[in-house]
Amino acid sequence: MTRPTSEASLTGVVPPVCTPLTPEHEVDVGSLVRLVDHLAGAGVDGLFVLGSSSEAAYLPDRHRRTVVETVVAHVAGQLPVLAGAIDMATPRVRDHVDAVTAAGADAVVVTAPFYTRTHPAEIVTHFRTLAAASPVPVFAYDLPVSVHTKLPADLLLGLAAEGALAGVKDSSGDEGAFRELLLAARARTDITGFRVLTGAELTVDAALAMGADGVVPGLGNVDPEGYVRLYTACRAGDWDRARAEQERLCALFRMTGVGAPSRMGGSSSALGAFKAALHLRGVIACPATAVPQVQLSPEEVGEVGKYLAAAGLL
Amino acid sequence: MTRPTSEASLTGVVPPVCTPLTPEHEVDVGSLVRLVDHLAGAGVDGLFVLGSSSEAAYLPDRHRRTVVETVVAHVAGQLPVLAGAIDMATPRVRDHVDAVTAAGADAVVVTAPFYTRTHPAEIVTHFRTLAAASPVPVFAYDLPVSVHTKLPADLLLGLAAEGALAGVKDSSGDEGAFRELLLAARARTDITGFRVLTGAELTVDAALAMGADGVVPGLGNVDPEGYVRLYTACRAGDWDRARAEQERLCALFRMTGVGAPSRMGGSSSALGAFKAALHLRGVIACPATAVPQVQLSPEEVGEVGKYLAAAGLL
Amino acid sequence: MTRPTSEASLTGVVPPVCTPLTPEHEVDVGSLVRLVDHLAGAGVDGLFVLGSSSEAAYLPDRHRRTVVETVVAHVAGQLPVLAGAIDMATPRVRDHVDAVTAAGADAVVVTAPFYTRTHPAEIVTHFRTLAAASPVPVFAYDLPVSVHTKLPADLLLGLAAEGALAGVKDSSGDEGAFRELLLAARARTDITGFRVLTGAELTVDAALAMGADGVVPGLGNVDPEGYVRLYTACRAGDWDRARAEQERLCALFRMTGVGAPSRMGGSSSALGAFKAALHLRGVIACPATAVPQVQLSPEEVGEVGKYLAAAGLL
Amino acid sequence: MTRPTSEASLTGVVPPVCTPLTPEHEVDVGSLVRLVDHLAGAGVDGLFVLGSSSEAAYLPDRHRRTVVETVVAHVAGQLPVLAGAIDMATPRVRDHVDAVTAAGADAVVVTAPFYTRTHPAEIVTHFRTLAAASPVPVFAYDLPVSVHTKLPADLLLGLAAEGALAGVKDSSGDEGAFRELLLAARARTDITGFRVLTGAELTVDAALAMGADGVVPGLGNVDPEGYVRLYTACRAGDWDRARAEQERLCALFRMTGVGAPSRMGGSSSALGAFKAALHLRGVIACPATAVPQVQLSPEEVGEVGKYLAAAGLL
Repeated sequence: MTRPTSEASLTGVVPPVCTPLTPEHEVDVGSLVRLVDHLAGAGVDGLFVLGSSSEAAYLPDRHRRTVVETVVAHVAGQLPVLAGAIDMATPRVRDHVDAVTAAGADAVVVTAPFYTRTHPAEIVTHFRTLAAASPVPVFAYDLPVSVHTKLPADLLLGLAAEGALAGVKDSSGDEGAFRELLLAARARTDITGFRVLTGAELTVDAALAMGADGVVPGLGNVDPEGYVRLYTACRAGDWDRARAEQERLCALFRMTGVGAPSRMGGSSSALGAFKAALHLRGVIACPATAVPQVQLSPEEVGEVGKYLAAAGLL
Repeated sequence: MTRPTSEASLTGVVPPVCTPLTPEHEVDVGSLVRLVDHLAGAGVDGLFVLGSSSEAAYLPDRHRRTVVETVVAHVAGQLPVLAGAIDMATPRVRDHVDAVTAAGADAVVVTAPFYTRTHPAEIVTHFRTLAAASPVPVFAYDLPVSVHTKLPADLLLGLAAEGALAGVKDSSGDEGAFRELLLAARARTDITGFRVLTGAELTVDAALAMGADGVVPGLGNVDPEGYVRLYTACRAGDWDRARAEQERLCALFRMTGVGAPSRMGGSSSALGAFKAALHLRGVIACPATAVPQVQLSPEEVGEVGKYLAAAGLL
Repeated sequence: MTRPTSEASLTGVVPPVCTPLTPEHEVDVGSLVRLVDHLAGAGVDGLFVLGSSSEAAYLPDRHRRTVVETVVAHVAGQLPVLAGAIDMATPRVRDHVDAVTAAGADAVVVTAPFYTRTHPAEIVTHFRTLAAASPVPVFAYDLPVSVHTKLPADLLLGLAAEGALAGVKDSSGDEGAFRELLLAARARTDITGFRVLTGAELTVDAALAMGADGVVPGLGNVDPEGYVRLYTACRAGDWDRARAEQERLCALFRMTGVGAPSRMGGSSSALGAFKAALHLRGVIACPATAVPQVQLSPEEVGEVGKYLAAAGLL
Repeated sequence: MTRPTSEASLTGVVPPVCTPLTPEHEVDVGSLVRLVDHLAGAGVDGLFVLGSSSEAAYLPDRHRRTVVETVVAHVAGQLPVLAGAIDMATPRVRDHVDAVTAAGADAVVVTAPFYTRTHPAEIVTHFRTLAAASPVPVFAYDLPVSVHTKLPADLLLGLAAEGALAGVKDSSGDEGAFRELLLAARARTDITGFRVLTGAELTVDAALAMGADGVVPGLGNVDPEGYVRLYTACRAGDWDRARAEQERLCALFRMTGVGAPSRMGGSSSALGAFKAALHLRGVIACPATAVPQVQLSPEEVGEVGKYLAAAGLL
């Protein structure tokens, strides 16, 4: 890496990069490179690989390695690359931290432990241990829908104050708690440069108005230009334009609901729609999602296409 | 493998084997071998490694490999060895299935996907895919406290009927649903040899009276003789003796509550007590649990000792 | 009241009495009286009105009053009558305690607060306040599926020791915790006569083997003789006969699943089946359940009939 | 009532009015009237009585009646009065609808059923039945933290389209879903005048920017002028001023955390702080909250006072 992850670089639009698969369920490296170009070309500020939108929960270690190596090599320091180190508890997560940083990730993103039942004091030890072992900054990933724990603001800020956390990606959907975190971080004199990013695709204008540093939108795979315009309008204080752009993206986001809940889980529906859209837009070669996810039907893919068309993306 | 996992062998007492660690948090192979001898010497019917009581959620892959290789080599076919393949979703679980079966496990134990949000149809695909890939029988691990999904009886039995599942370890704590599963399995003519094991330490006599095939008791690490006596009494229909033995074990189980909930999570308290007891009994060299679990205080270890003494185990 | 609720009377089979409604959704007093006779004639040991199986959550106060007055008057002291005082928090529950005891209930049954978020210390105050206000014994109703709080054993036994609780109806479905409660109650020398009743229809033999004092089975509306036989067999220590009777009742209980989950909630399906069965057996005049519950379809009622026939009840 | 609840009137700031109690736990009518004057004098647009902030879960029917009669009489048509009809299921809620509308409420506010397990089709029947019975408009109250059901947007809008719902008070804290609701409502041509109010005190500026019609802030009891200024700034499009006012209110809101979670539940802490603040500000005579809530300690009340002072409210 020639380009350090300075504080300043970890703001803006940082899409969680989908992982294109071949029909044989291997990583489609060519499509992944095209996807990175698609995102970088739109002007995003960073890339987040091996998160939930990347299907990290499904990807075997060899796939994870391919993903991070491919993306790091391709961006060649032009953009910071954050990498998820998603696993159940500290020692296993540690191995992923080692792997992604060896591959060149500029920062790692770590959830609270899951599968196990942990006490807040144990969550603190978890992050502290990983931060001590990581050669790059650690971001907390607040994702209660997956790990069934909400990271409290005081826990995060205590870790920030001791230098163990560089920031947080908040995908909790709890905007009240998000604002409390932002205000508490600002009020503390012992914390500087702590980055607060939102993963909530539908309320980016609100989050930025509240003071968030950036956004990690899954839908940004499909329409990165939209999120870049949204971010730019917010930073310029042009809230009317921001709201219009955000509402256009909200309409586009409805593609995540085309997969019938009677047939598939929420992950399958959302990731299936993102990948179908990327396929329809010509970015990736195959829309398959990982096993055991149910694939969208041709009719459902047709619905995704209508949302793209309505948004001017086809 | 010289000894096939016949249907008959997967009954009885099958303790989930704790994973002894050194103070440096490596697998303590010598202690693990002693623990296996401690269990085998008590007359247990099988061993389950790399489950929740083994701290599988914490163990890095290299530790998991050491555990299964050590235990398989040491028992040398004298007891069936079941191995957990605990990970988030199908492709990652697949790698663990490959690893533990390459190391000689007689059967694999697999949960529903977690971290992701899955539909029942996806859970079916998950088990079906893994069964097709596994050279040994697959047991479902019903553990809602960890994976936040309860496996429905009709899902399990449909998979059993098609040969994808050899049995289930039920750690749901839902004894009504457990009995419905047992009765439904018995009523179906298209299912034979489906093994239903309970992970509920406190209601083994009840589960066996209902028709369960065996028990996978975490507390069995501490007092395997007790569970063997309990199982034997139940099989003999001596319910008074079974009840007395079970109640003695219930009293012993209270050791899992010595760790203060204000200081640690439920895993730390239960696994910490089991390991402290094994250490006090001279079976393992060090009672450490994996990071980030809080360790029992000396006073709490003293409480564990009192429970052992009261149970005649010191 | 001419007949005190002695300790001895609150054991055995105490069905939670369904509330028959007219097609106009008034309480059908004639059917209620017939239902009471149906239960009393089968030899049950007590009656529990205004619980969940009585649709207490739906019944307006005037209906609740009619129910308790009707049942108390009709049994005329020949059986103890427990009455639910189901409402959100202490002052509202207090009014129901006053109402049902004015109407002659021999004991009241009270849940933890719901709708509000309460601390264990507040739950203690809740029960303590109501016990101080009640002229009759108070039973705790442990029903996490409805109130989203599990009552811990130490909380219950602390209240028992100070005389605030006479017993508990455990509908938690957590048989491990149930056994811990039973053993803890037995171990305490400061508690006498604390009654532990299970609401779990499918594991009555197990609960009685563990030491439970009685059972409050919703299915007991449909087949009270079955539960009386089951209880008698358990008390006689004839566990084989008990198991056979329990398994027959488990098969009958499957009627609660005939209502399609795609069309209705779990309450509608279970209560709808109980009322359909009572109607088919000629006990009540109309099988209607309260608004907004979805009614069973004719086909689903037909399925209920098949379960009755298979159990020899038609 | 001489003043109809026109669509136009149900926008703006509509505080959920706390219910002052005497030390003997009766409704303190004098304090309630002063609180209404305090709110009306600040320029609020309506009042919501008998909601969660009013401790409706605790108030006996006679207290509920006193509250609604007192407030309706005192405002004398100068402000619309919405009244909660909080109870478990339809027939019981119906009685509260009758009671509060007989007392003159301009609209009723109704949650999904709770305590029971309901299907979405049953929730639709619930609202439809109550709307048919109510002489005034019905608002849905989306409060998953209390009723454990999130009201889906399509369910709400279907009921709006058929005239059964006049609006929704959204206290779900799910701002993404809130925005989807707002956009879906706007997109439907078969719905007019459906009012969407947020109960989220910390994100009012965001909600109004998204298009919400109004706000129902519990903290508005303490600082109604603040919320009126905030609303006014938002309506004027002065987002910088709005943000500053909102952040001042966020700082004030931290008073809800002074009650120690180790001693009391979340309701006790929040409602205790609001009432302590109203007492310190001289609006109500006694800060007591209803049984079984734990009262704030003198030190905790002192902390509340510091927040008031910091906000310039003492």
